[in-house]
Parts: sequence; C-alpha cells; structure tokens
Amino acid sequence: MYVFVYVTASSLEEARKIARHVLEKKLAACVNVFPISSMFWWEGRIENALEFAMIIKTKSEKLSELKEEIKSLHSYSTPCICAFAVEDGLREFLNWIDETVEEE
Amino acid sequence: MYVFVYVTASSLEEARKIARHVLEKKLAACVNVFPISSMFWWEGRIENALEFAMIIKTKSEKLSELKEEIKSLHSYSTPCICAFAVEDGLREFLNWIDETVEEE
Amino acid sequence: MYVFVYVTASSLEEARKIARHVLEKKLAACVNVFPISSMFWWEGRIENALEFAMIIKTKSEKLSELKEEIKSLHSYSTPCICAFAVEDGLREFLNWIDETVEEE
Repeated sequence: MYVFVYVTASSLEEARKIARHVLEKKLAACVNVFPISSMFWWEGRIENALEFAMIIKTKSEKLSELKEEIKSLHSYSTPCICAFAVEDGLREFLNWIDETVEEE
Repeated sequence: MYVFVYVTASSLEEARKIARHVLEKKLAACVNVFPISSMFWWEGRIENALEFAMIIKTKSEKLSELKEEIKSLHSYSTPCICAFAVEDGLREFLNWIDETVEEE
Repeated sequence: MYVFVYVTASSLEEARKIARHVLEKKLAACVNVFPISSMFWWEGRIENALEFAMIIKTKSEKLSELKEEIKSLHSYSTPCICAFAVEDGLREFLNWIDETVEEE
C-alpha cells in the first residue's frame, strides 16, 4: 500500500534534516514541506506554535522503520507521525515510488 | 478511529476562532492552519478566493459534534468539513490524542 | 466515494492552469493551492525544488478522466497525482460536490 505520512517539525531546518535522513535511508521517495501555525493542548493549556508540516510519500512496508528513524531524530518526545492510505494514483508515479523506495 | 479533519475558513482570524472553540470543547487535540488560494464553482461561475485550511486532529467519535460546532460558528453556509482516516501512526502520538480528547 | 486528490505542480501558474482546466471540464468542484518546498530522489540524486501543491475535491468516478487531463497538461512526465478517500464529511458540502461535478 502507498501512504502519505504527515509529520510536524519545530523548524524548517528540522523538517529538512528529517526529510534528507529518511530519503538517504530510502524510506521515502519524496517529501513536501510547508509552514503551519498550530494550536494544541499541552500540559493543561492551549498553546500556539509555528511549525513545519511534512508530507512523506512512501509505502506502508516502510512505516515501522520510518517511525523509529523520525523519533530518533526529532526534537519532540511525541511527534505527530500519521499515515494516510493512497486510495488511487497515477500508475507511473506509484511505480516511481516503488523503484525509489528500495525493497526490503 | 483517529481522523484528520480538513476544514477551510475565510480568514486566519476565523480559522483561529474555530480552532480555539473546538479545542476548548475538547473535540480535538491539535489544529494546524495554513494559507491557501482556492478556485471553485459558485452559482454557475468559477470563483477565486484566499482562504485558510485547517487540519483538525481528533477521533471519529467526535465527528458529528465537531461538524455541528463548526457549522454553528462558520461564516459559510456550506463549509468544507471532510475527515480522513489515519491508517497508522506513532503510538505515543495517538495515545496523546486519546488523553486530550475527553471520552463521552 | 468522495476523494481529495493531491497533485504537485512546478509553479503557481501551472497549478492555476490545471485547476481551471479540471473545473471547466466539471471534473472537480474546488481546488486549493499552496506553496511547498520539495526534496526527492531523481536520477540517483536527492534534488530540491519549490513547487505548488493542489488539493482537488471531487468524486472517485472522475478519477481516471482527471488523471488523463492532468497528465496531458502537466510539465512533468510523472506528476504526483494521488487520491485519498473522504471517510466522512458535512452532508451539505458533499451534496455540493455532487451537484457541481456533473454525472457521466
């Protein structure tokens, strides 16, 4: 199954560090990054923060290793790492993900 | 089931008002907001607008109440409120959603 | 089934050209566009590019035609065109997609 994994990072620098790491480990084919403003509950209060979202394009077989690698690098103790199933896609693009993300 | 709910708002102010409201009501754990430019059909013409997208992280059990609360606050009569199922995620992060979004 | 289709384009201009085309062909009801910075594998190297992401709101019945139309317009030989199933949504908004995206 192909998945897009949504991850948030504390800075553009952190997002790019994580993106390069998971690409170099062939755990993903492509990462899109964009700025977000976040509002969330933390230790009993509603907090605000400027963050960066990452959309990591990969295959579900890579998810457990991807989670471990991101957790090991991430500045948060509990980073948002959530995967969404690609329902359908352009065959050539999905083939490119297959070729790029090395088989086990 | 964990879901990300995609909602569009007419301004950053409206997005933050809705975000704070659903967080205060414990209908969500976190909201990410970012600017978008939109093109859409409206009353027989293709229109353009600058909007703000919201990604609301919550559980499917909260969806019906979340829809009602957003509709009651929103400036649009027909706001985009669409939920996507989280296929898989970092266990600690999903636990945090559980702890943050109070049970019925 | 309702779907959001995620597509990336090389420029805002290309994104808006594709958005207008798929709207005019009644293959979608609405398109949201936002800037992203991308990191990806290409011909054996990790490359960087500034792109624009598009979220196209439509129905799964339109997907095959949508893929063809986007491919025919796109500057990439292998554009990212990936669809995600809407799990649940505001009934009025989904009805609006039905009314806007013409039946076969």
